[in-house]
Amino acid sequence: MVDSGHVARARLAEGGGPAATSVRRTFRTFQDLASLLAVAAGREPADLYLEGAALLNVYSGEVYPANVAIKGRRIAYVGGNRTMVGPETRILPLRGKTLVPGYVEPHTHITGMSTPEEFAREVLRTGTTTLVADTLQILLHTPPDRVVPLLTALAELPVLIVWSLRLHASSPLEDETMFSRGEIERLLGVEAVRVVGEVTRWPTVYHGDDDLLHKIAAALAAGRRVEGHAPGASSERLGALAAAGWSSDHEAITADEVVHRLRAGVYTMLRHSSLRPDLGALAPAVTETRSRSGRFMLTADGPEAVTIVERGYMSHVIREAMAGGIPEIAAYQMATINPAAYLGLDEEIGGIGPGRRADIVVLNDLRNPTPDLVLARGEIAVQDGRVRAAIPDFPWDEYFRPRFRPTWTPQPDLFALRLSAAPGGTTPLRFPVIRLENSVITHKVEIPLTLREGCVIPPSDAVRAVLLDPAGRWMVPGLLANFVSRLGGLASSFNVAAHLLALGQNPTDMARAARRLLEIGGGIVIVEDGETVLEIPLPLGGVMASRSLPAIAAEAAPLYAFLRARGYPHQDPHYTLLFLPLDSLPDIRLTYRGVWDVRRGKVLVPRQDLPGPNPIR
Amino acid sequence: MVDSGHVARARLAEGGGPAATSVRRTFRTFQDLASLLAVAAGREPADLYLEGAALLNVYSGEVYPANVAIKGRRIAYVGGNRTMVGPETRILPLRGKTLVPGYVEPHTHITGMSTPEEFAREVLRTGTTTLVADTLQILLHTPPDRVVPLLTALAELPVLIVWSLRLHASSPLEDETMFSRGEIERLLGVEAVRVVGEVTRWPTVYHGDDDLLHKIAAALAAGRRVEGHAPGASSERLGALAAAGWSSDHEAITADEVVHRLRAGVYTMLRHSSLRPDLGALAPAVTETRSRSGRFMLTADGPEAVTIVERGYMSHVIREAMAGGIPEIAAYQMATINPAAYLGLDEEIGGIGPGRRADIVVLNDLRNPTPDLVLARGEIAVQDGRVRAAIPDFPWDEYFRPRFRPTWTPQPDLFALRLSAAPGGTTPLRFPVIRLENSVITHKVEIPLTLREGCVIPPSDAVRAVLLDPAGRWMVPGLLANFVSRLGGLASSFNVAAHLLALGQNPTDMARAARRLLEIGGGIVIVEDGETVLEIPLPLGGVMASRSLPAIAAEAAPLYAFLRARGYPHQDPHYTLLFLPLDSLPDIRLTYRGVWDVRRGKVLVPRQDLPGPNPIR
Repeated sequence: MVDSGHVARARLAEGGGPAATSVRRTFRTFQDLASLLAVAAGREPADLYLEGAALLNVYSGEVYPANVAIKGRRIAYVGGNRTMVGPETRILPLRGKTLVPGYVEPHTHITGMSTPEEFAREVLRTGTTTLVADTLQILLHTPPDRVVPLLTALAELPVLIVWSLRLHASSPLEDETMFSRGEIERLLGVEAVRVVGEVTRWPTVYHGDDDLLHKIAAALAAGRRVEGHAPGASSERLGALAAAGWSSDHEAITADEVVHRLRAGVYTMLRHSSLRPDLGALAPAVTETRSRSGRFMLTADGPEAVTIVERGYMSHVIREAMAGGIPEIAAYQMATINPAAYLGLDEEIGGIGPGRRADIVVLNDLRNPTPDLVLARGEIAVQDGRVRAAIPDFPWDEYFRPRFRPTWTPQPDLFALRLSAAPGGTTPLRFPVIRLENSVITHKVEIPLTLREGCVIPPSDAVRAVLLDPAGRWMVPGLLANFVSRLGGLASSFNVAAHLLALGQNPTDMARAARRLLEIGGGIVIVEDGETVLEIPLPLGGVMASRSLPAIAAEAAPLYAFLRARGYPHQDPHYTLLFLPLDSLPDIRLTYRGVWDVRRGKVLVPRQDLPGPNPIR
Repeated sequence: MVDSGHVARARLAEGGGPAATSVRRTFRTFQDLASLLAVAAGREPADLYLEGAALLNVYSGEVYPANVAIKGRRIAYVGGNRTMVGPETRILPLRGKTLVPGYVEPHTHITGMSTPEEFAREVLRTGTTTLVADTLQILLHTPPDRVVPLLTALAELPVLIVWSLRLHASSPLEDETMFSRGEIERLLGVEAVRVVGEVTRWPTVYHGDDDLLHKIAAALAAGRRVEGHAPGASSERLGALAAAGWSSDHEAITADEVVHRLRAGVYTMLRHSSLRPDLGALAPAVTETRSRSGRFMLTADGPEAVTIVERGYMSHVIREAMAGGIPEIAAYQMATINPAAYLGLDEEIGGIGPGRRADIVVLNDLRNPTPDLVLARGEIAVQDGRVRAAIPDFPWDEYFRPRFRPTWTPQPDLFALRLSAAPGGTTPLRFPVIRLENSVITHKVEIPLTLREGCVIPPSDAVRAVLLDPAGRWMVPGLLANFVSRLGGLASSFNVAAHLLALGQNPTDMARAARRLLEIGGGIVIVEDGETVLEIPLPLGGVMASRSLPAIAAEAAPLYAFLRARGYPHQDPHYTLLFLPLDSLPDIRLTYRGVWDVRRGKVLVPRQDLPGPNPIR
């Protein structure tokens, strides 16, 4: 076995000591160097020899015929020589094919319903061999002493996982110690954490928040990149964020915004996700001149499962980049060597070169990024569209705390939007409705308050939207407009706050959906007329299930179809549910504090603490 | 003072501890972030405001009008806004000028006769603000316990110095402990050591030498780049060296060799030095497509002083790149952002962007890379061609050991090429003459041995070439052809082995030159007919003097003129003297072991141990 890099990484991640904060460009050991050299020089035989294909050399931007010799998990040689082919060397004839490097995804959220390993399995199928993955759900659901072992254990997958460490919560939480400076500094000792962010609270940074700047400074001192998230920021503000340490951003939605980021010295990810399929709009910014310093990357930014299964992952994004007019070779570079260089891993991944990990995608045609064959770490990982790489079962019970349990029974009255229970005392004259402008952006619409028996009467275009503590200790009453025209009750634990969200028009159906959600340990449940009409169990923290990603897609598709049939007018219902508690998108959101005005930073309708079997504290 | 990075670096370098091996992308501290942000957002005034110029944005490859606001040592803001201009802000009107980033030299030898600080002063004058500098002479001349303080202290200069740590000697030495694995691993703890190499013994690596591979593996484990040096290596061998950990190479002398390096995934430096002014030959390899992944860099590779003073430094190389047909903006990128990204310092240097060090070159015209004004770390460092930046006096006596001292008196008989003293016993029938093919490459020419009174009679086209221990304990007798047609005696301590080299036709003049050299503590001395005709004192280790680089150039120019007048037919006599003991260039060299056959790895004429006042051991 040539590569012992992942073992070294694991040791570092657990260990501490001087090497703990080193950020290696490659994980080759002395044994790797000696072994690869011996094969390259023809003194020892290769394990595998890819013969007869054309090679996309992303270093030189050229395509030409070249064979590839593999030893263990790495590429030992690229060229026309056969001196390293011995009797034991397996030869893979690939005439007519084209070899490109395994795709590198620089920004994703791998805990969107499926587990990281099942996510990895599915994206590997279409050629993605490296993922920079969000730690948000891990930090929310894993006990602090299990976080480092978890991040480390996942490094054993055939897909290389690099972690992006969250610096703050996405929605206010009762307990935010997992995002404290001390915790951040501790987790920066994990070598696989190479990036921090995404920093969604960009206005907080812009206004000079000490705590967040201290965390960013700690990340910079540890040699990490800082991943920004600044939707809608002006070029002036982007510049200020760059001065404050931001390295990259993936939130441009126009070609002008792409140019603003690039000019500010911020590495610029062009996103094409299920939520924001924007490459058509972004691609015109990618001129030959602008692409010369290698600072563009492509990202899929964690699309929902159906999109991944139907269209592929980075393969789909590369295809859309080419369709948008980006030259073929540049499109592949933006999904391979550019993100590898950004991550400081250009000597490990991102190119088919001597010494690199043997992560190779075999194509029938450079115009079609969907693989014919995928090699990961020197093994044939995908053949005939099927994943052959061994992906270990992962003991999630040891890492994710159960969060949604039937320890209490939500009653219909919880969803009646009763305001008398508000601790504030005075009831407002107008009530703020959360109106969806698109899948995730909301707008505040104030309506005259009409009460019946102390309860808000929803207007006809809105559904009740109640955020609940999983243990039933508090609730936030809200209204959501421009979502669907008709809905009994939908309960979901799938959101960035790990709270229980209930949507609907019928408090009884909402209560039943919430009860059922607690019974199945979390997930998404729809109840209408007293009957469960749809159920997606997500028993791991209420956000993940161990089922395969295609299996989850098969469950998610009917949910989306149901909502669309009920009039959902936007792009991506997955992100609507996920982001309703997100405190860093305009305009008003449902959070632990109450209905929350993002721009003004104030509570519009306060949280109500509840009596019952699970009192607060 | 916004930037405390250099202090932090210094602390790390001395300290050890967990952070000692971190490799930061930027040295911004929390205070820097807060202060820069406040200026960028217009909440606090800038110190300096550059107004009215055009900006070369190396991130986007564009030139457009933009002002630059500076706070302390860093750039806070780039754009058209003036909100950060306060009553105390100094405004620098620059209408008609163009701003480009300070030039970054990725590979140099700053201990070539002048001290690092005087070298830095001179290259700063023409716009170079970052140097990746060879540690060879420092390791040879500095006691081990003083190396870290020295590397650290030099980080205080206005020019940013990044160190390239030598992994092995350049010529065999009695004592090579400064290059031992233990020492290498210790010095990898110095954060300013970001690169190791150059690894001149590439055949040793290629053949799988354990010791060297262990050192390379240690460098990779510490997140460092490995700088190769593989003149003449085939594309096959380059690939093997890349597999063995090489990150970069600067030894291409043809366009094909450039492409070989690039394709092997090796960052490719295009060199234009006094020894190898090759850009004209290399530039055609730089196509738009090949330059897209940002893996080309320019380097001056430590030219001798006269060339620097007469032509400039990176400014000269950029000009030659443009003359060779490389597009203007690409040429600047290859001397700024590309090396910065290679070094993992792209968030610190290499571009005019928010948060970066305020290292800025002001040009009258983008076609002319010679600065009108240079800012280094936020201060006006060069104006009207004069260096205004404060460069501290440096107490070299505390760091460099005296090596050449008049503790003994070389006698003419030492230079008589007496073979009877050889310990081997039998005298050879033929004698190997070192024939210079060009400035530094030699070829073995065997001549029939003619002895007179036990001494070799030199042929008419050769001079005596004797390598001596500085303490007079051993000597190596040799002959050097195709050097000059007539020469009394030249003694030089300026070479990569820290030995005393004597060349000439007259043993008496040679002895006098050697004596004088010892009297002045090292340097270069020419004696003819008993008179000293030229003398360049280099009292610091025999290789450096504290005089300014122009002063040294004024002393070196007559030396070169003298040798040329005597028939020296090659490009660069500076490198001829420096490299005669270098054990990694073909074909035969003068080394501590004796006259050395590089390719065969064997001694052709052995070292002779001498009796006298300083016996060996």
